[in-house]
Amino acid sequence: MQAIDLLISARWTIPVEPDGAVLEGYSVAVHEGRILEVGPAAALAGRYEPAARIVRDRHVLLPGLVDAHTSAARSLLRDALPRGPASQWLGSTLRPLENRWVSAEFVRAGTLHAIAAMVRGGITCFADLYLFPEEVARLAGELRIRIAVGLPVSEGHSPWADDAADCLDRASSLWDAHKSDPWARLYFAPDPPGEVSRETLERLRRMVDQLDAPVAMRVHDHAGQVHAFEAEHAQRPLPWLASLGLLRPGFTALHANHFAAAEIELVARAGVGVVHCPKTALRLGNGFAPVARLRQQGVCVGLGTGAAAAGLGLPDVLAEAQLAALLAGGAAPGEPGAPGATAALRMATLEGAQVLGLAGEIGSIVAGKSADLICVDLSATAVGAASRVPDALVYDGSSRDVTDAWIAGRAHLAGGQLCLIDHERVADTARQWSARMGLGEPR
Amino acid sequence: MQAIDLLISARWTIPVEPDGAVLEGYSVAVHEGRILEVGPAAALAGRYEPAARIVRDRHVLLPGLVDAHTSAARSLLRDALPRGPASQWLGSTLRPLENRWVSAEFVRAGTLHAIAAMVRGGITCFADLYLFPEEVARLAGELRIRIAVGLPVSEGHSPWADDAADCLDRASSLWDAHKSDPWARLYFAPDPPGEVSRETLERLRRMVDQLDAPVAMRVHDHAGQVHAFEAEHAQRPLPWLASLGLLRPGFTALHANHFAAAEIELVARAGVGVVHCPKTALRLGNGFAPVARLRQQGVCVGLGTGAAAAGLGLPDVLAEAQLAALLAGGAAPGEPGAPGATAALRMATLEGAQVLGLAGEIGSIVAGKSADLICVDLSATAVGAASRVPDALVYDGSSRDVTDAWIAGRAHLAGGQLCLIDHERVADTARQWSARMGLGEPR
Repeated sequence: MQAIDLLISARWTIPVEPDGAVLEGYSVAVHEGRILEVGPAAALAGRYEPAARIVRDRHVLLPGLVDAHTSAARSLLRDALPRGPASQWLGSTLRPLENRWVSAEFVRAGTLHAIAAMVRGGITCFADLYLFPEEVARLAGELRIRIAVGLPVSEGHSPWADDAADCLDRASSLWDAHKSDPWARLYFAPDPPGEVSRETLERLRRMVDQLDAPVAMRVHDHAGQVHAFEAEHAQRPLPWLASLGLLRPGFTALHANHFAAAEIELVARAGVGVVHCPKTALRLGNGFAPVARLRQQGVCVGLGTGAAAAGLGLPDVLAEAQLAALLAGGAAPGEPGAPGATAALRMATLEGAQVLGLAGEIGSIVAGKSADLICVDLSATAVGAASRVPDALVYDGSSRDVTDAWIAGRAHLAGGQLCLIDHERVADTARQWSARMGLGEPR
Repeated sequence: MQAIDLLISARWTIPVEPDGAVLEGYSVAVHEGRILEVGPAAALAGRYEPAARIVRDRHVLLPGLVDAHTSAARSLLRDALPRGPASQWLGSTLRPLENRWVSAEFVRAGTLHAIAAMVRGGITCFADLYLFPEEVARLAGELRIRIAVGLPVSEGHSPWADDAADCLDRASSLWDAHKSDPWARLYFAPDPPGEVSRETLERLRRMVDQLDAPVAMRVHDHAGQVHAFEAEHAQRPLPWLASLGLLRPGFTALHANHFAAAEIELVARAGVGVVHCPKTALRLGNGFAPVARLRQQGVCVGLGTGAAAAGLGLPDVLAEAQLAALLAGGAAPGEPGAPGATAALRMATLEGAQVLGLAGEIGSIVAGKSADLICVDLSATAVGAASRVPDALVYDGSSRDVTDAWIAGRAHLAGGQLCLIDHERVADTARQWSARMGLGEPR
């Protein structure tokens, strides 16, 4: 008998790799933060002597969910309802509030508040894009939660930086500080084409070339913006970015909803990842991404919550997976190869990890990978057959049913309770911020 | 001080009437099954001496949700995954199972199983359409839950009836038996145009004329079926039904997704109700209804789960409301007047009640109506401002957050626990049925 840290036995296991597998009566052995073995419960029980043993007999065990794009600290702005057209929400509602209130303290409180909700909903890794990224990177290490931290690059003045040059200076020194950080993995995040200059993007490209750093950028989210850019530059944003040499592996197109056929090929050929944020896209009236066609061409599509950015409350990747599957299958009828529940779960885990460049470490339950795992109680879905588990989870499950979460083998959620974050205190702080900003008051 | 049965005080109340109101710090006084008064908590506390007092300080109080179309007993077939194209699921997967297994006992067990899930998710009234409607009507009275019970009319042989004439005979005697039943309200439910003959529909029309009975029918759910009907009859189904004199108040178009512009006018002018089942529609690749345009023309649109019919598990009207709002707003951009959260809640309550002909009795929190009420815990959505309550509930809430439900003032769900149904026993019976039919076994 081999002594190990943890043995988890759930009724069902969806390892994501191999694709489509639903295992019944399996266990996962975890030691020193890594997945040691996945196998039939009886076999593993006879082989390992675990320090901790978790049995979840109405549950499915999955890789932790990956939120491939969010702005976590905006959870403090969740009560800021849009004024005017939803598509202009960012400029008309959020930016003025942010210019007045955002600080290091704000970002720390808001990110922590969002992380509490994320862990409760099974998100064990997320890509963040917001101001004061140094605070987010610090939280990653303190909580030992895996965060891809975006380094924003904007032309204008913000509470964090004076201009694009200042952004790039700050980004460069943060890159140096975190280049071997196991929890925070940094990437460069310029504003979308049209909001950031060609000169800034050229400077950024030289910098990321030297550092071998990834880049993520909002692009083609809104049809009107694509047309406006084209009217000015005689080219749509994606081909324009290609001409600057930015479309290549390590580049991610965030919120990308609108693709000409040639642009899908362009993205596929360039090895660019896409992050689909269906709830945000629908809420802002932006349509939604052609997920089936992108994936057929071999494009990796992660799921993002975009979350509080659209005033939709707290990040919930399982809800995004449900929407992604329903939209791709039903709202574009006739589109062949629409992803079903299994593909939606793959996007919510492994493809998200691939987009973030973390697929060697997380995204599937495979020996050697980090033990980033979650359990979801399926009893509310009344599932009976193993073959229905992916459907039950995606179409009928809820983030409310997540009971346990581990990151690198360490319990962050156990039996529905947060292990490392004082939820009441975090929620109180969020309420205080809402009140201070006048968002909690009737209008 | 006036003695009353029940006083409910929730942090927020959405009465649905007046439209858009979100009350903070209100109470609802209930006596002898009816809503006596809605008013500020302090005022009502000084006026009434309740036998029971319920305080829910993180919750919103709403009218009970209305599932305007489901086939509850199909919850026993939840593990029957589609074989072949989803659009042919009904014929290729469900019907063969139903012909073999459905009986009065099946319908009773399956309906009870679905009701347990419905009450837990805040559904206090539903319209059912399935075989053995006498069992469903009996359950309504036994449990004192409000059910609109469809009387199916099919040409072919089924486990319930030999042919259309037999269906109509059975329907007629059930109508007589239940015509003054306060819990079961019957309606006639012929198969869709193309599956039921003109002669049968003419006979049905004479019968419902005599009885002054409502009719509901699946129509225009699938574009291919509409085209096939048109090829044979030189008319699309809706105008064809109009020519038979069936389109009038009391007629409901179920699952109706595809409307020519003139058909929206036709339906509006005729006073016909529509039931939108977005999750089923997307799951079956059928597109979705033009909800914004229908409602702008004054058509009443209820929400239906269609539920287990699409293998989507158990009925969840709050999930349908979220989808309805997201789809109408975001997947058809540019469509003016897209319904938001407030409209989605109205469809899930008052408009559903109107479609079922029950709006005089339920669907809003108004003095004199039946006390069909639910509480939803909003703490997981971290809502701060009263103005965000509808958004938080629709876009970010979950049926898992429903804590309490009353029907005619009687508690059916209290603090998350079912009061009148033994959930474990019902779930066990459902599992046994799954196993007996071989659905629980790996394939």
